[in-house]
Amino acid sequence: MTARTGRALGATLLPVSLDRSNARPLQRQLFDQLREIILAGRVAPGARLPSSRSLARELGCSRNTVIGAYDQLYGEGYVEGESGSGTYVSSVLPEELLGSRPLAAPASDGVGSTVDDPEARLSERGRRLSAARGEVMRRHGAFTPGLPETSQFPWETWNRLSTRVWREPSLGLVRHGEPGGYQPLRKAIASYLRAMRGVRCAWEQVLITNGGQQCTSIAAMAVTDPGETVWVEEPGYAGLRGPLLACGLSMVPVPVDGEGMSLEQALAREPAARLAVITPSRQYPLGVTMSLARRLQFLEWAAERNGYILEDDYDSEYRYGGRPFSALQGLDRAGRVIYAGSFSKVLFPSLRLGYLVVPEGLIGAMTRLRQSIDDHPSSLAQPVLAAFFEEGHFAAHVRRMRRLYEARQQNLLAASRAHLGGLLELAPDESGMHLVAGLAPALAARMSDQDASARAAKAGIVAPHLAGFFVEEPTRQGLLLGYAAVPGEDMEEKVRLLTQALEM
Amino acid sequence: MTARTGRALGATLLPVSLDRSNARPLQRQLFDQLREIILAGRVAPGARLPSSRSLARELGCSRNTVIGAYDQLYGEGYVEGESGSGTYVSSVLPEELLGSRPLAAPASDGVGSTVDDPEARLSERGRRLSAARGEVMRRHGAFTPGLPETSQFPWETWNRLSTRVWREPSLGLVRHGEPGGYQPLRKAIASYLRAMRGVRCAWEQVLITNGGQQCTSIAAMAVTDPGETVWVEEPGYAGLRGPLLACGLSMVPVPVDGEGMSLEQALAREPAARLAVITPSRQYPLGVTMSLARRLQFLEWAAERNGYILEDDYDSEYRYGGRPFSALQGLDRAGRVIYAGSFSKVLFPSLRLGYLVVPEGLIGAMTRLRQSIDDHPSSLAQPVLAAFFEEGHFAAHVRRMRRLYEARQQNLLAASRAHLGGLLELAPDESGMHLVAGLAPALAARMSDQDASARAAKAGIVAPHLAGFFVEEPTRQGLLLGYAAVPGEDMEEKVRLLTQALEM
Repeated sequence: MTARTGRALGATLLPVSLDRSNARPLQRQLFDQLREIILAGRVAPGARLPSSRSLARELGCSRNTVIGAYDQLYGEGYVEGESGSGTYVSSVLPEELLGSRPLAAPASDGVGSTVDDPEARLSERGRRLSAARGEVMRRHGAFTPGLPETSQFPWETWNRLSTRVWREPSLGLVRHGEPGGYQPLRKAIASYLRAMRGVRCAWEQVLITNGGQQCTSIAAMAVTDPGETVWVEEPGYAGLRGPLLACGLSMVPVPVDGEGMSLEQALAREPAARLAVITPSRQYPLGVTMSLARRLQFLEWAAERNGYILEDDYDSEYRYGGRPFSALQGLDRAGRVIYAGSFSKVLFPSLRLGYLVVPEGLIGAMTRLRQSIDDHPSSLAQPVLAAFFEEGHFAAHVRRMRRLYEARQQNLLAASRAHLGGLLELAPDESGMHLVAGLAPALAARMSDQDASARAAKAGIVAPHLAGFFVEEPTRQGLLLGYAAVPGEDMEEKVRLLTQALEM
Repeated sequence: MTARTGRALGATLLPVSLDRSNARPLQRQLFDQLREIILAGRVAPGARLPSSRSLARELGCSRNTVIGAYDQLYGEGYVEGESGSGTYVSSVLPEELLGSRPLAAPASDGVGSTVDDPEARLSERGRRLSAARGEVMRRHGAFTPGLPETSQFPWETWNRLSTRVWREPSLGLVRHGEPGGYQPLRKAIASYLRAMRGVRCAWEQVLITNGGQQCTSIAAMAVTDPGETVWVEEPGYAGLRGPLLACGLSMVPVPVDGEGMSLEQALAREPAARLAVITPSRQYPLGVTMSLARRLQFLEWAAERNGYILEDDYDSEYRYGGRPFSALQGLDRAGRVIYAGSFSKVLFPSLRLGYLVVPEGLIGAMTRLRQSIDDHPSSLAQPVLAAFFEEGHFAAHVRRMRRLYEARQQNLLAASRAHLGGLLELAPDESGMHLVAGLAPALAARMSDQDASARAAKAGIVAPHLAGFFVEEPTRQGLLLGYAAVPGEDMEEKVRLLTQALEM
């Protein structure tokens, strides 16, 4: 125990000052500075602090400010002593710790000194995950793929429903929700999927998630172990990478041909895969629909080899010709397909709600798994979306957007015929929210799709290159042109800008 | 290629029937049944289906219904043939697949046959994660710990702000949000934490999450690798288990004493830990505040051993006496503390919004990591909560609840003095939302805390036993009594019910 010194430090000897222009309360400022001084060892353990009266006089503040700061120092163990008998720097502070750390003066914004080479401090996993998305396409505009038209979303209806639900919410809505999600929403989604997508499910099989990536995480955690292999489509959706890496999985890219992912190729590349992540309704980004034969082959593989299929049905609402191809899930009789969907493209991206349809026998286990890693999805939007379904607004919105996007695809095709000849080759597509434009021979002779995309970007046009969707050497070049969020009246101008960028 | 048969199957030979009371469209019902028949091999490849006219007559439905179903079968590859020349079961179906799967008749709710022993099909990880929470306490009522009073939440204000934000939302709110969260909310949280919790941070260090468990997931993924060790408090919060297991970490429980987790004990149990998850402000569930000496020891350990501290500051808003102990994060000068908080206990549990304060040097990497695994937090609540902060409603609500909970703790103590003598021993606590009641010797002689909790449950009283918070052999017995959501007028009655349950 360090001896206490009898004589108090002069108030003027303490390097403290208060800044009245700072938003932090004076008492907090004083506490912080005194703490720094003590921790830096600039006043010795056992030293007596100035009386509150003299320090207050010196600083020109109220005595209560100083008493408050001293109280907090006392409460947190920095000083000791009874009221009236003086305030002493704590003698029980571990002496070897004092002054051993670099104590920077607090910066005005509250940020301390920077640390050197901080990313080297991440774990190996942390580094891989932080680099997993590479350069993330967060540019919005013509022609960002997958971006829906949001200006025609029925906000008034949405807000009316929201207010109705949340005016006097029941305890059930406000307290912890069900891990699987809000029951009426699960029922609405199940009905919708049965009627429109040919999904075979009871509502209990529907688990609400925080969006598409959490769908991938939960599915992969449930049916794979770290170190196992997952087949992913090549080219494919880059957003899978993070969740699959986080699960410690090894991703094997499998080429997509005119019938979708090839099981033969998949098996040749890695016979022992445990999971196949595929987009059978409309392959992302190429737009191919997986053939029936392939579907049956994958189901057969899964049933025989204890494999699973994660079916990502990300934008099947938008089908302009013929009827939507039924979901692969509807063919599964062995409980081997986990079906995933999200509302980002149908409603609006920032909503972040998705869903899984899990095999009947896995309902309990996957619900508990979900609860273990993330108690339950937020209840804020779920009842609103349930009412949106129940009152028919969802179906009406999808119908409106389908007509709109169909017209916009026509606009894009017309504008490209008028301007893009000899540069890009576009063909109509029965479905989706983007077209894949091939490079015309004359353009391909001059530049790669990456160059073309970079030139477009300079002109303010977003046109991701197909190369960016490949893990291995790209086998095909092209630009993705999303048309859903480009108003008809802007289409020609945007195509012209793209044309100019490519002609230069 | 299978030969086509010339003669159409008689419509009466097809085992199909339509159910008009079913919500599924007739066309879909017909499609489903025909598909089943084809896939089951009950009509041979090359067989000719009845004409649409005769099948429609047989089924008593419109011919368009049959044509629609045939069109879809055609579109999906189950049948072939040109219009007018008859409809044939596809000859290119992989014959070896037909009839090889168990094809159950579709149940009326859309669910197929159940699969046997389905949980055995989970991966080892899936099984461990689905069992991670054990029996989850999802019973709400007196005395569920951590449950806030929600009936006094200012819903009207919340709805008003929500409508204001979402009436005509900007594109920025509706399209993909920032991975780190909505800027004004991050700024509001940073100010609040600097002023009230002594956290040293710039707003850029604040990352919004989908709640407390995602805080743990992101922090653990960033700084640990699979197979590494994390120290957790014993007894401690069971909700950590899922996220840490999902990260492949080995959890080493470290006993908590009167000063919090002991570094000495931690090092003795596992010297090579990479992460310590602690609740220094108020240990959960015991309520101990970590001493300054211990705080400094852990900071020293982290700086010297390349370790990290995840500080979970889960309910520090509720402090009734003295002032809140500053966050450990405010003492960190080496960028070794990741601070986590959530709004579940301050606002309402189903909101599912939390935040991390990450070391300055890790902002970029951790934001990218977050984006890799889960693009961004939903934008729905974030701007509403930001306005709730900016207009002072947050501070006002916390103040109101603090007064309310303080009174309720008094109510609980008064009722326990009146009724629980000789059964449970309660002492006042300066902070928190629950008390830990020790078993009086007379009760402890008769039963364990688990028995006591089970008896309470039978009487409709939620009183979790301390044993449930231990991983190893419990060293202490007691019941957690959460009082925040128990109205003052109900307190005596609930305590009486508890008393009766324990007296029996």
